[in-house]
Amino acid sequence: MKPTDWNTRAQQRTARLARAAQALGPQLRGKVVAADAVTTLLQAVLEPGDRVCLEGNNQKQADFLAKALVQVDPAQVHGLHMVQSVLALPEHLDLFENGIASRLDFSFSGPQGARLARLASGGRIAIGAIHTYLELFARYFVDLTPQVALVAAHAADAQGNLYTGPNTEDTPAIVEATAFSGGIVVAQVNELVDGATTTLPRIDIPADWVGFVVQAPTPNFIEPLFTRDPAQISEIQVLMAMMAIKGIYAEYGVQRLNHGIGFDTAAIELLLPTYGEQLGLKGKICQHWALNPHPALIPAIEAGWVQSVHSFGSELGMEDYIRARSDVFFTGPDGSLRSNRAFCQAAGHYACDLFIGSTLQMDLEGNSSTATLGRIAGFGGAPNMGADARGRRHASPAWLKAGAQARTGQRGAAGTPRGQKLVVQMVETFREHMQPAFVDRLDAWTLQEQAGMALPPIMVYGEDVTHVLTEEGIANLLLCRSDEEREQAIRGVAGYTPVGLGRDKRMVENLRDRKIVQRPQDLGLDPREATRKLLAARSMRDLVRASGGLYQPPKRFRNW
Amino acid sequence: MKPTDWNTRAQQRTARLARAAQALGPQLRGKVVAADAVTTLLQAVLEPGDRVCLEGNNQKQADFLAKALVQVDPAQVHGLHMVQSVLALPEHLDLFENGIASRLDFSFSGPQGARLARLASGGRIAIGAIHTYLELFARYFVDLTPQVALVAAHAADAQGNLYTGPNTEDTPAIVEATAFSGGIVVAQVNELVDGATTTLPRIDIPADWVGFVVQAPTPNFIEPLFTRDPAQISEIQVLMAMMAIKGIYAEYGVQRLNHGIGFDTAAIELLLPTYGEQLGLKGKICQHWALNPHPALIPAIEAGWVQSVHSFGSELGMEDYIRARSDVFFTGPDGSLRSNRAFCQAAGHYACDLFIGSTLQMDLEGNSSTATLGRIAGFGGAPNMGADARGRRHASPAWLKAGAQARTGQRGAAGTPRGQKLVVQMVETFREHMQPAFVDRLDAWTLQEQAGMALPPIMVYGEDVTHVLTEEGIANLLLCRSDEEREQAIRGVAGYTPVGLGRDKRMVENLRDRKIVQRPQDLGLDPREATRKLLAARSMRDLVRASGGLYQPPKRFRNW
Repeated sequence: MKPTDWNTRAQQRTARLARAAQALGPQLRGKVVAADAVTTLLQAVLEPGDRVCLEGNNQKQADFLAKALVQVDPAQVHGLHMVQSVLALPEHLDLFENGIASRLDFSFSGPQGARLARLASGGRIAIGAIHTYLELFARYFVDLTPQVALVAAHAADAQGNLYTGPNTEDTPAIVEATAFSGGIVVAQVNELVDGATTTLPRIDIPADWVGFVVQAPTPNFIEPLFTRDPAQISEIQVLMAMMAIKGIYAEYGVQRLNHGIGFDTAAIELLLPTYGEQLGLKGKICQHWALNPHPALIPAIEAGWVQSVHSFGSELGMEDYIRARSDVFFTGPDGSLRSNRAFCQAAGHYACDLFIGSTLQMDLEGNSSTATLGRIAGFGGAPNMGADARGRRHASPAWLKAGAQARTGQRGAAGTPRGQKLVVQMVETFREHMQPAFVDRLDAWTLQEQAGMALPPIMVYGEDVTHVLTEEGIANLLLCRSDEEREQAIRGVAGYTPVGLGRDKRMVENLRDRKIVQRPQDLGLDPREATRKLLAARSMRDLVRASGGLYQPPKRFRNW
Repeated sequence: MKPTDWNTRAQQRTARLARAAQALGPQLRGKVVAADAVTTLLQAVLEPGDRVCLEGNNQKQADFLAKALVQVDPAQVHGLHMVQSVLALPEHLDLFENGIASRLDFSFSGPQGARLARLASGGRIAIGAIHTYLELFARYFVDLTPQVALVAAHAADAQGNLYTGPNTEDTPAIVEATAFSGGIVVAQVNELVDGATTTLPRIDIPADWVGFVVQAPTPNFIEPLFTRDPAQISEIQVLMAMMAIKGIYAEYGVQRLNHGIGFDTAAIELLLPTYGEQLGLKGKICQHWALNPHPALIPAIEAGWVQSVHSFGSELGMEDYIRARSDVFFTGPDGSLRSNRAFCQAAGHYACDLFIGSTLQMDLEGNSSTATLGRIAGFGGAPNMGADARGRRHASPAWLKAGAQARTGQRGAAGTPRGQKLVVQMVETFREHMQPAFVDRLDAWTLQEQAGMALPPIMVYGEDVTHVLTEEGIANLLLCRSDEEREQAIRGVAGYTPVGLGRDKRMVENLRDRKIVQRPQDLGLDPREATRKLLAARSMRDLVRASGGLYQPPKRFRNW
């Protein structure tokens, strides 16, 4: 065997770079590619069947490269295997419709979920699997290593060093896997600096790791995904947030946590400096966060509740506030945020005591899923953060108490003591259009049959859920001693949904005596107190004011 | 409240840098500190009570900085809270004996385990917790963020850019957490290049992230921890390796895996191209690895078994081999390995179907621990990789089969289907000095009492173990339907230990009929075939030969 046979990836890399140089000619200077030559570049470096990571994050999108990739000639470039976190842009699916890509491994599809389902059922996309983010990143280093990565950064210098800006997100994980496996990294940037008279605020990705840089004609798209207008928070959400704070956060002494996206958890954030303060909880709960820079957290930060926030990504408009609150956020010496989805997901998994999220459907075992008929929405970070971290070995009061309760319940006293993560599903019993959130059977089962999946697409397994919180009360699943008790505890907070109406009233009352089901009044809460007045900010304007004018919401949120 | 109150960390950073500049005077040029001024530097930048990460890896050690830190004046610098993966060097504990440090959060202590236990029981060290690596890294971003990190790299340039060399290990995680939270990073390097006439092979850590660089008088210490001389592999280990390959790897079709350290798993690696080849398994198992570059894997790589290896660290002597096999290993365009413990642990957790490790003690529930009386050895990566990754959502045949078996067993058919990771504990029934590996009660329980820990220091929980493999056979714990069956399955492979002798013979025979306990003959293995002749390399020299002379073992392994 010739020794060169062991270095085919490096040889391919050299060949691809040479093809690019030849195809681009004067449109390539050093590593910098002219914007109008990007499709030429992609056509030169890509080969049929390549695994390609087209950076799609929760927020930041390599949109210019996505548009360029859609333009390549399918006769030359086809059968691509796309491996990317998020399908956010129409182009992410156009690739499959026009025959350039055929296979997909991903995490979250959000707005493209319905179209994805159509393409998959029509046989245009072979879906490998839906992952949680950290799982997909892990596979980049094992069996889904990209040959080519198309990423987005804020700026580059002439050498190819990248400044990702506050929305670092997935970029470091993608680039490391690609650059160190003979792959090629192409970065679109908003700005090019010469590196001499103008320099990058800091270097996030060294030039060695980057093959090509192109300045996009327009800045990359960023979605302000985590901004929730307090004006839209309902009094039911206020009540639920009060229950969360008093019935769970205070009860377990939760100091390190992650909040999912949405108005339910925004309400919790906005009640900390008011209701939380009344309960004397400052310093006793919620000091450390794995969280994007939620605007709704501003009042709690200003009131001195928060010691640290490490972020998956950033949030538009929060730049100046973050810079001015560098004790709280992870920022560089230049003052801008350093986010990192891989590390923040690790933090959410291993260093947080509580994950609180929401779902579209929950069944009688507590399994929940956002996959509903006709939509393949994906999972995002929920499976990773909403799972008991069984490798965790450090103790905290919250984790130990949850673990002790689990031994009182189904795991049984015989089980070897270990702690457990608090995983809370917070849902109103009915969602939009009066669809019940509690169901006998998840749509996920039908989706599994339709799409020929190995398992139903369950986001968080009931085995891992510790509490279900609705406007009717809190069900503590840890304390349940049997599957039947568990089912009745869930029915016991499922309100007027068919699942809730199907409860065994006597058994639910028994569970209430044992504090497995708790109503607002059992927690000493008067639902009449749950008014919007309790919110530390009741509008976007209040948030801006609370930030001392540092928070600058995107235009669409400026309604005053 | 003054706005400046929100930027105390940044202000502290500035103040520390100014103190260093003043204390060092001409001994500081740019970021480069004179070697004999390092203790002065540390005394200037450190403050009492600081959280400090003194980089201690599995292999690479910031040994020069460790020696310098021991020299600071305890009157000035004391009460440090050390947060570091590995306690490998005597200096790591000297810090506590001489009053510089008082608190410790760590992962693994290996050779320092006995001394650590003495210091802890004498009240000289307050141990926060023993973590698995990724858990500790996660806390660096939440509640154990270092104020100062003392790291080791291979080389730096005058600007402070670092080339970590193949042993990247923990460095990126430590530096990112420190540099982006107002902390200060000090790097010891083996070489300084001027950046103009001589340049770094590549940049692993950008200069922006680094505060100070010092060239150590001697290269940093690296332990060849993963080198196992095939000459020391016994025929019992060959037999156990045959059982692992035929009874587990082939049975489940394991393609992606991690091997722990030791002769047991080295034997498996060395049997792939011989025994595995005979069974026709090439291409059907073991193509993707999360593994350091084990020399014992060379014959399997050469025989074309291995598609990829992503590594936590590197291994001394493997540099040229890795460079010449870049299709298999993750290397930079410069040809040297890029390891990364954080990503490789994520890969081990989320992208591997099997973890196989060893232990010192296992109890009747299958709990195992390397913590024995008088030693606090720590856990390393085992809890993370030896736990079911409950956040995982992508399927593979091995994972689905294990999950299906779990529903046949204790989890029960009612449980919602999900996959499960294969976690194999591979132990001889007696370890050194005829100590039984199977015990009624783990020493961990006594250690818990002695050290006042919240939980016993269990490395891998029985709930997460799927198979126990000894020279007597394989116990499949997934298929057990009750705690009693589980106990008898373990007793059934525990040989002549008291635990093994205490078996219910009839029940064990019943388990054997159900293939829950399998003897070598049940697998069609004749123990007489288990000879050292089956090993693809029987000596270090054979490994060198198999590598075509590319592998250059450290001197102590050169016994020919």
